[in-house]
Amino acid sequence: MIKTNKMLAIVKDKKKVGATLKEVDIPVISVDEVLVKVEATAICGTDMHIYDWNQWAQNANIKEDLVMGHEFCGQVVEIGEDVKHVKIGDRVVAETHIPCATCYQCKHDLQHICANMKIFGVHTDGCFSEYAKLPEKCAYVIDKKIDRKVGAMMEPIGVGVRAISEAEVFGKNLVVIGCGPIGLLTIATAKTAGAAKIISTDISSSRLNLSKQIGADITLNPLKDDVIKYVLNETNQVGTDIIIDSSGSVPAIIDGFKYLRKGGVVILAGLPSEKAEIDLSVDVVFKEARIMGIHGRRMDDTWTKMKSLLENNKLNVIEVVSHEMPLSEFETAFDLLKKGEGSKIILLP
Amino acid sequence: MIKTNKMLAIVKDKKKVGATLKEVDIPVISVDEVLVKVEATAICGTDMHIYDWNQWAQNANIKEDLVMGHEFCGQVVEIGEDVKHVKIGDRVVAETHIPCATCYQCKHDLQHICANMKIFGVHTDGCFSEYAKLPEKCAYVIDKKIDRKVGAMMEPIGVGVRAISEAEVFGKNLVVIGCGPIGLLTIATAKTAGAAKIISTDISSSRLNLSKQIGADITLNPLKDDVIKYVLNETNQVGTDIIIDSSGSVPAIIDGFKYLRKGGVVILAGLPSEKAEIDLSVDVVFKEARIMGIHGRRMDDTWTKMKSLLENNKLNVIEVVSHEMPLSEFETAFDLLKKGEGSKIILLP
Amino acid sequence: MIKTNKMLAIVKDKKKVGATLKEVDIPVISVDEVLVKVEATAICGTDMHIYDWNQWAQNANIKEDLVMGHEFCGQVVEIGEDVKHVKIGDRVVAETHIPCATCYQCKHDLQHICANMKIFGVHTDGCFSEYAKLPEKCAYVIDKKIDRKVGAMMEPIGVGVRAISEAEVFGKNLVVIGCGPIGLLTIATAKTAGAAKIISTDISSSRLNLSKQIGADITLNPLKDDVIKYVLNETNQVGTDIIIDSSGSVPAIIDGFKYLRKGGVVILAGLPSEKAEIDLSVDVVFKEARIMGIHGRRMDDTWTKMKSLLENNKLNVIEVVSHEMPLSEFETAFDLLKKGEGSKIILLP
Amino acid sequence: MIKTNKMLAIVKDKKKVGATLKEVDIPVISVDEVLVKVEATAICGTDMHIYDWNQWAQNANIKEDLVMGHEFCGQVVEIGEDVKHVKIGDRVVAETHIPCATCYQCKHDLQHICANMKIFGVHTDGCFSEYAKLPEKCAYVIDKKIDRKVGAMMEPIGVGVRAISEAEVFGKNLVVIGCGPIGLLTIATAKTAGAAKIISTDISSSRLNLSKQIGADITLNPLKDDVIKYVLNETNQVGTDIIIDSSGSVPAIIDGFKYLRKGGVVILAGLPSEKAEIDLSVDVVFKEARIMGIHGRRMDDTWTKMKSLLENNKLNVIEVVSHEMPLSEFETAFDLLKKGEGSKIILLP
Repeated sequence: MIKTNKMLAIVKDKKKVGATLKEVDIPVISVDEVLVKVEATAICGTDMHIYDWNQWAQNANIKEDLVMGHEFCGQVVEIGEDVKHVKIGDRVVAETHIPCATCYQCKHDLQHICANMKIFGVHTDGCFSEYAKLPEKCAYVIDKKIDRKVGAMMEPIGVGVRAISEAEVFGKNLVVIGCGPIGLLTIATAKTAGAAKIISTDISSSRLNLSKQIGADITLNPLKDDVIKYVLNETNQVGTDIIIDSSGSVPAIIDGFKYLRKGGVVILAGLPSEKAEIDLSVDVVFKEARIMGIHGRRMDDTWTKMKSLLENNKLNVIEVVSHEMPLSEFETAFDLLKKGEGSKIILLP
Repeated sequence: MIKTNKMLAIVKDKKKVGATLKEVDIPVISVDEVLVKVEATAICGTDMHIYDWNQWAQNANIKEDLVMGHEFCGQVVEIGEDVKHVKIGDRVVAETHIPCATCYQCKHDLQHICANMKIFGVHTDGCFSEYAKLPEKCAYVIDKKIDRKVGAMMEPIGVGVRAISEAEVFGKNLVVIGCGPIGLLTIATAKTAGAAKIISTDISSSRLNLSKQIGADITLNPLKDDVIKYVLNETNQVGTDIIIDSSGSVPAIIDGFKYLRKGGVVILAGLPSEKAEIDLSVDVVFKEARIMGIHGRRMDDTWTKMKSLLENNKLNVIEVVSHEMPLSEFETAFDLLKKGEGSKIILLP
Repeated sequence: MIKTNKMLAIVKDKKKVGATLKEVDIPVISVDEVLVKVEATAICGTDMHIYDWNQWAQNANIKEDLVMGHEFCGQVVEIGEDVKHVKIGDRVVAETHIPCATCYQCKHDLQHICANMKIFGVHTDGCFSEYAKLPEKCAYVIDKKIDRKVGAMMEPIGVGVRAISEAEVFGKNLVVIGCGPIGLLTIATAKTAGAAKIISTDISSSRLNLSKQIGADITLNPLKDDVIKYVLNETNQVGTDIIIDSSGSVPAIIDGFKYLRKGGVVILAGLPSEKAEIDLSVDVVFKEARIMGIHGRRMDDTWTKMKSLLENNKLNVIEVVSHEMPLSEFETAFDLLKKGEGSKIILLP
Repeated sequence: MIKTNKMLAIVKDKKKVGATLKEVDIPVISVDEVLVKVEATAICGTDMHIYDWNQWAQNANIKEDLVMGHEFCGQVVEIGEDVKHVKIGDRVVAETHIPCATCYQCKHDLQHICANMKIFGVHTDGCFSEYAKLPEKCAYVIDKKIDRKVGAMMEPIGVGVRAISEAEVFGKNLVVIGCGPIGLLTIATAKTAGAAKIISTDISSSRLNLSKQIGADITLNPLKDDVIKYVLNETNQVGTDIIIDSSGSVPAIIDGFKYLRKGGVVILAGLPSEKAEIDLSVDVVFKEARIMGIHGRRMDDTWTKMKSLLENNKLNVIEVVSHEMPLSEFETAFDLLKKGEGSKIILLP
């Protein structure tokens, strides 16, 4: 089926800003892996860090000559001999967290936070390319009726589904901090899950508008609005039941404790780059706050829910895609994202 | 404000089928009660039992010369001197379960299953009348923008909200057995709460059609369809995650265990009139089924969620109302329901 | 290490009562299996069914010429080439439920109720023998300081640990129905887990005495005591928080609903041989009972807790062992159990 | 029954260090209050703050001429006319958190973190006196067989019971930071609740010794031991399942995140006096830590469990009492505590 052993890929071949589209070998699979012809792939913040070669990327133990990218869907064209469930012709999406299957976490239904976790597209070659290989356990088969742009986004959609599953939003008030792709996907999922009132915050009006389109009832811009006062007013001075942070902004999280209700829940999905000074007595103990970090999708719990929702048309996320362009225009894509234009950009090989 | 001390009410004044619309005294409130001018009231299955004076009703310890009815909304026109939160002019709906406030259950956040519970409209005069009185603790203030027909149905809507809260349906497959009012309200709530796939069953095509309109993805009629086979097919032979029974039909519940997945959840909200022969080894132990009975709405948890959902337009239930007529036409209403025509009938005083 | 390829084993070589101790081949392991030299093994009710060749056994799809037995501990003497964690010389105990690793349950942290589960010692050769083989995933490594008699009982101890984990007994009142080995191990575990008051029921005085020794605060014999009345008195007429059935006795379970408190929990671990006629309205819906079947130990959650408790001397179960005898005296052992003498009997190869 | 209207009490009658034992009026109860003859009372850290008149005390909105103290048990000698459950002659202990009964929290089973909470012995007169008055809802009736010293400590015991209830320690590894009275009571409760391994930390050898006596399996002194390394070693490099902080020490809490396992739980019961700088990305998000503040005892859930455990002799805490002396020797008591000698001191009126 594959005529040649070469393919085009975006390769991180320099220890500075940028990457190169070039011809590389098509990956050779092991006995427990599958080879996937990429249909569509999406750019994530992590890809931008690697492209920019920022401080995080320099310390992240990134594979040499990495084929970038980790969000994608595609069709299986080859399977290893030990592969049991995935078949040639199946359409699959990738779980980015590659668990070791042997640590304490892997043995106790916490594979997604495996103690020896490898990240697809960071520690292994990824999917900004014509073909990509995956361990079978990270390949989830999806229905062919799911839009390829949605398929390419299922990894970040899964963060929203996970956050909403943990937060139990049905009938509750919810503030989502940050309207980047994860925030927007969280808002869309919160709408599906029956949150009573969804308040979104961001410093960009265009992102706030998009959040309203996708499910937010109220949008607040901390540059203009007194968020604490507003949320308290909207909740009869009780405070919000739930906060989900997808911004990683420490000041926004600290403010959050002021409008969280006593006994409320804070889900941290964003990644702050500096430490947070927290008044544990006032904001956690007296308030009996419950704080929980989430890092990715539970395997298979989150994936099963997400697939069922998408296959049954219960989760509308397509509006999060702002652009769609050929793989070769990746530099344009990274430029757009750097300027803060665009939300989720899909690359097509 | 009230010019006279007389009002019209539907009174159960005979120990046989029927009731009488007649003039009775407007209730006199105690220090901890409120008097409500009824805006709209709805007929429940319990009212039909009382009207018909069936076996259940004869054994139910029903108050003499009962003013029938327990589902309603209205405006507070008078309050007792110990009433603290409800004000004259407030619009309220009634919680039917009147807790004692002193038993083990009342002390442990289970007031709705109080050990000494009295039922409004069964053990006390109800609301098929121009005025009704309520203990303050059973009067929930609601927004005036909520449709009076919806207000009159909040008590049964609350059963749906409770069932869905316990079942945690987000992203899951769900079968709702029975499409009477409780079943329909449960389906509407399941849709709001993000169930991935909702299958409804009933022996009436018109009720099944209504269930589809209100949120069911698939409808099955056990008189025509092989429900067990169909549900297994729809769930890749795994079985459904959740079953909510609102029918009280023992054969339907027994069948349910055959299409429940291993580790699945069964919520029983309907009231079977005969005993159920259950194979505990096969259907409960080997299957690790989790079965839970629910009886009414948690106070205040369910009410708070329901009010937030309705006030924020997140729960659409108006289609469950099939008829609206003056209180005086109650005999027509009971006749319609007895014939199986009509779903929820609203009476207007 | 193994001098010959023959061993002694108790073989079910006839389709009627009894079994034969004879020489058979030592099992040959596959790539993912381990061979274990049996240190000690214990007799379970299932073994008695097979020995007696009762109705259940005749329908249970039992392997031809089965080496009987499934509860044991021993030392690993050989490992398959794909075995990763277990090493030669490790001491292991066996999980009896052999999961398929591919079904819905196996993918969702419910391997112990795998849809395609095989039972060690029923569908595969077991451990009433000098050697036994096991899939690696069913071999749990345990500390050498754990008594071999306790090691041989860890599979049924795990049922107690599982039941108590699900029931959340800390500070609660608990009734354990049935003081056979599972009931006794459940009581011992309940004591460890801080149940406030443990009431045991059985029709045998000697078993009741043993239950008191091992942790029950109060013992009741339904042949002599009015169990319903007694439990209600002991709980201020509120009823017990939790019931765990390990008897499989339908009348005892039905009685249980009468002394369960409103909102209480019923864990079913025993296996009734006939159907139960349950009044779902009164006993489940109005009572808001929560009923849960449990079938074995969660992998690895239950095993990890149990191992930690035993290795840290926090769970005392040795008194459940009533006899210890050589493998060759198996007929005496089965006779004792049939007469209702003896609790757990250990066989030593 | 009470011959005079005067009693002895320790009064905070100056805005500087110290207090005065003097004669004051016996409290006059309202309709919903009870008057209690104090049997025994215990000194808490809060009392020391007030005695010392430190920064916290100066800002705490403390009642003028406060009768100090909030932990006690005693006998009811008078009841208000609206009191329904408590009777003259009952023995009661005090819940310190006086809820308003009307706020969101009070309506949703979170009375212990009432939005308008008053603190007995801080905002109202307390119990370092011969008599004290209490709202009925804060008076829990206890069995007369409970030792008066234990009765006087039930308020802080309840913090331990609450922490352990939230943490679900059965079969798990647990680190308790800080071996003051709350830490010790938490350790005793953890032992009762079946924690597999309890590690305690403190900088005082005598407190560590006491922790071992009361239930700790391993004791660590951060001044001498490498706590992080030790806990990781004790948990096979996995990290501990649960941390309960009762120290309020920010450095100890920060260290805790390093030995918490991925997916572990942190319960904060201590009150840090400065802000904590937390690396949310590394310590909360990537680790998927769950952090929860607790502030007092759930009403009535914690009280019911604690009472059952104590009345059934399942919780041994008496060793936490280091001294017992007459009320008049309060200055000696405060001196001992200031020097760090003594654990819990009981005062007898």
